[in-house]
Amino acid sequence: MSYRAPLDDIGFALRHGAGLGTAIEQGLFGELSLDDVDAVLAEAGRFAGQIIAPLNRIGDTFGAKFQDGAVTTAPGWKEAYRDWRLAGWNAVTAPAQWGGQALPQTVNAACTEMWHAASVGFANGPMLTMAAIDALNAHGSETLKRSYLEKLVSGEWMGTMQLTEPQAGSDVGALRTRAERAGDGSYRLKGQKIFITYGEQDFTDNIIHFVLARLPDAPPGTRGISLFLVPKFLLKPDGSLGARNDIRAHSIEHKLGIHGSPTCTMIMGDTTGAIGFLIGEENAGMACMFTMMNRARLAVGLQGVGLAERATQQALAYARDRKQGRTAGMKATESAPIIAHPDVRRMLLTMRALTQAARGICYAAAMAIDRSERSGDDAARKAAHAQASLLTPVAKAFSTDIANDVASLGVQVHGGMGYIEETGAAQFFRDARIAPIYEGTNGIQAIDLVSRKLPLANGAAVAAHCEELRSIVRDLNASNDPGFGWTAVRLGDAVESLSRATGWLLANIEKEPDAALAGASPYLRLFGTATGGCLLAKEALAALRLGGDTAGRLAITRFFAENIAVGAGALERTVIEGAAGVLGADAALGS
Amino acid sequence: MSYRAPLDDIGFALRHGAGLGTAIEQGLFGELSLDDVDAVLAEAGRFAGQIIAPLNRIGDTFGAKFQDGAVTTAPGWKEAYRDWRLAGWNAVTAPAQWGGQALPQTVNAACTEMWHAASVGFANGPMLTMAAIDALNAHGSETLKRSYLEKLVSGEWMGTMQLTEPQAGSDVGALRTRAERAGDGSYRLKGQKIFITYGEQDFTDNIIHFVLARLPDAPPGTRGISLFLVPKFLLKPDGSLGARNDIRAHSIEHKLGIHGSPTCTMIMGDTTGAIGFLIGEENAGMACMFTMMNRARLAVGLQGVGLAERATQQALAYARDRKQGRTAGMKATESAPIIAHPDVRRMLLTMRALTQAARGICYAAAMAIDRSERSGDDAARKAAHAQASLLTPVAKAFSTDIANDVASLGVQVHGGMGYIEETGAAQFFRDARIAPIYEGTNGIQAIDLVSRKLPLANGAAVAAHCEELRSIVRDLNASNDPGFGWTAVRLGDAVESLSRATGWLLANIEKEPDAALAGASPYLRLFGTATGGCLLAKEALAALRLGGDTAGRLAITRFFAENIAVGAGALERTVIEGAAGVLGADAALGS
Repeated sequence: MSYRAPLDDIGFALRHGAGLGTAIEQGLFGELSLDDVDAVLAEAGRFAGQIIAPLNRIGDTFGAKFQDGAVTTAPGWKEAYRDWRLAGWNAVTAPAQWGGQALPQTVNAACTEMWHAASVGFANGPMLTMAAIDALNAHGSETLKRSYLEKLVSGEWMGTMQLTEPQAGSDVGALRTRAERAGDGSYRLKGQKIFITYGEQDFTDNIIHFVLARLPDAPPGTRGISLFLVPKFLLKPDGSLGARNDIRAHSIEHKLGIHGSPTCTMIMGDTTGAIGFLIGEENAGMACMFTMMNRARLAVGLQGVGLAERATQQALAYARDRKQGRTAGMKATESAPIIAHPDVRRMLLTMRALTQAARGICYAAAMAIDRSERSGDDAARKAAHAQASLLTPVAKAFSTDIANDVASLGVQVHGGMGYIEETGAAQFFRDARIAPIYEGTNGIQAIDLVSRKLPLANGAAVAAHCEELRSIVRDLNASNDPGFGWTAVRLGDAVESLSRATGWLLANIEKEPDAALAGASPYLRLFGTATGGCLLAKEALAALRLGGDTAGRLAITRFFAENIAVGAGALERTVIEGAAGVLGADAALGS
Repeated sequence: MSYRAPLDDIGFALRHGAGLGTAIEQGLFGELSLDDVDAVLAEAGRFAGQIIAPLNRIGDTFGAKFQDGAVTTAPGWKEAYRDWRLAGWNAVTAPAQWGGQALPQTVNAACTEMWHAASVGFANGPMLTMAAIDALNAHGSETLKRSYLEKLVSGEWMGTMQLTEPQAGSDVGALRTRAERAGDGSYRLKGQKIFITYGEQDFTDNIIHFVLARLPDAPPGTRGISLFLVPKFLLKPDGSLGARNDIRAHSIEHKLGIHGSPTCTMIMGDTTGAIGFLIGEENAGMACMFTMMNRARLAVGLQGVGLAERATQQALAYARDRKQGRTAGMKATESAPIIAHPDVRRMLLTMRALTQAARGICYAAAMAIDRSERSGDDAARKAAHAQASLLTPVAKAFSTDIANDVASLGVQVHGGMGYIEETGAAQFFRDARIAPIYEGTNGIQAIDLVSRKLPLANGAAVAAHCEELRSIVRDLNASNDPGFGWTAVRLGDAVESLSRATGWLLANIEKEPDAALAGASPYLRLFGTATGGCLLAKEALAALRLGGDTAGRLAITRFFAENIAVGAGALERTVIEGAAGVLGADAALGS
């Protein structure tokens, strides 16, 4: 059940899939060199593999204990968090002004993958702290930034993201937590929040809650939401911890997985209301929330990649070790490692191909964010921002969907042993199941992609994306390496399926929104499949140019193209022809 | 979290999908009428829904306790089992000679689905007892039958099926449990078995273990395996319980799901060896085992159907009740039940369509067994036997694969609540995960289908199957009801894909076995998809002839055809073109 960071795959995907090498050559990151990046990743890999990964199972079995409002995390977790933040890992991308290292998002994406591979339950808390830092940095007042950012960046304090209420899940506009103006510029919050990751914990002596609430005179729906910073302990004028604020954890949930991560129900307003400080403008909380959410969505996608990588590593190790049955020519008394059996190979290749494809998509999204923040000219920044907006829902949903597929195959490869908890494969399967749900369900991601992201710049962003994929297919055709098999044909078909389905959706999203939305989820899968396959091909083509591991990269690309991307045509057809059967099926739903 | 047996769907699938109506008209079951069948099913549905289903969650949370060699099942389980067997449910298909009711396998298939829908952990034990009854009845000596069959049939004693050892899972031929001839006609067994379902329990005062073991002079592999009956308590000459036999449970497993079902490690031979009685001939245990296994495989398929049905029912109820977001035209202050959202509808329709398709396949397999046992002439029995052999691996693997897909969608429909254990959706997700593994992994089923079942009668069985599907497609084309949408085209394509993939496999299974086996799992999925879709269409066509719920049956058929069967072409291509990418990918597996 160990985890060894796949530094070669990660480094290659960053350089040649996401284009970090080119970006560095272009001077996007100042003096940063690829050697610097390698050094950071190697150290992150060491920390993830040696310090965090061994704590993953104890987090699952011990869980997080709740008593009298306090949470006790699993043995060793508090110390691991301390060492992790002292090593600077919370501050990788944060601004230098607040003590951050201002490294590329792309580099942090690779680190994030590794933290989640090591332990999703552990990495969940810092993930949300980083998202909160983004929101505070982008929208907070100077006073708030000065009071809170440095300690959030260092990880001395953790942040939470408090959106969900019992009646307001996907529909965040339905939230009821009330914020009243106190007259001194602060606010008093009363209400209940649920499913709050690390809402209470024993890692840090203060917790900075980022809470969505509604002013008494706010308009209904999402246009009446404001974001507040609500510290667990208020600060004295010198910045030291003062009075306990009126916000507390009421209980923690009994979940299918990520047991180590305390998921809290939070109560504000036992007495006079929790003291909160507005971030951004009143009733403009949605914009702040999307700053948090977009970061968190990409991070959840990387959680999927990390989990899938870990499940794949464990299944591969088991399949090399476990002997059952024979291959052609073996004697009845002999037995072969199960990795020799074609059906087991298919499962393992599916796991590896999906994992690497999802990694490519997430890193590409991170690179688009880097370019949107650092490119020299405005047009390039805008184009990159549109690309990042387009890729984020795909990165989140595709990666977490395949993480579930991969974790399930991981159980299957283990046979009966996979169903026994001690083996560990079942934990990945349980842990993975939340990722398609939180930070916006994958259905919400698909709706976001179809209804908000495709129309960006009148469809120019998605058109540019398809052109980029086509150029990879052209390179494949030009390469003509026999190791690719049918790759060029299958990926070419997949890209054209994506292009046609996109055209159909753009033509129908306004006039027949329900018909377009009926195909949103298969469309997102199609988008991820075509994109992930082409990014694998891009890496394989780079390997052919550069030498090194060409056989492995060609083989995984070929497998993806012939065995996974081959399904693109059916997804296209589902998008374009399936809606009537979805929308007209009342009788089949008994409604 | 309640379960209401879908008697209308079950009855219609039996009559018009599996053809129970025709079989009864043909006199296959003597005096049995459809009214009799309905009465049995109604009572089974009542028992499953009212008595067993409410015990499902306590089984999950309490589990099964093990202490000092004894197992304590969850509160209420023992009493429910007693009432269940006293009502005669263990004896539905058993021979009248031994107290059974000799009802059709088809009827018991429907009952089996309901027991598993109510509680997989509960239904698991009886499932194996019924399989053991088959083996004893088919292969046991008159003496053994007289001593054991009646009490196994009544359920006063339960049976177990003991194949697996640590080094012998899928490769049953690697088992080492040793059986020595005692000189008095009995045998002494020594060894260890693992993953033994209900290996120890508190339901019955004796347990009859069916144990595979190897004689000292047995040839290696599967040709040296013998089946033994090993009672927990030996019988005195008058049939009452005598001495405790030298077989005991050593421990129970900590599993991902089916917590209520005790999964035991068994030890034989602490002292002089467990006394066992040979079933069938020495070294001919595999044939006996296949009698047990085939029955159990179909039952596990029905377990998948039951679980999928239950998960679907719960998700539908939640989706009708839970309000989030708005549909077109609603005000910002209103909210719609989530079943109104197209993406949620897609999930629910996928759940229902896959469940009903799997049900159709399992019932068709059961009907083939009935015809193989009861048809008047030898040729018909033989053809039906071949059909049952062909359909059994598909029934097992397709139904359990889709049960996992459906249970996972069930969690997703619940959103964040789905991840909370109290909701119950997570239990179905955990419980379902074992079914693709036990009673022969789904990979083994696919290999069995491709390498043993397709070649049956030189391919005549599968050819007849494809012809039957084609005739349904012809009826669809003739019907031309607009409610079918693209159904006839998509199912026609799927059947031709199945036919071509079958031809390719038959041409290659001998000369390139690894290439054929590389596509075995996608082939099985293709087989299940084409067959399940056509069986739905057959039911819908019957509904059009008969009136009644035509809209629902047409809608679910159409959804299946346009949104699921549409993937058949990709599966065909994977089978025919994918092998090279699977077999030549050593470099991508790091091996």
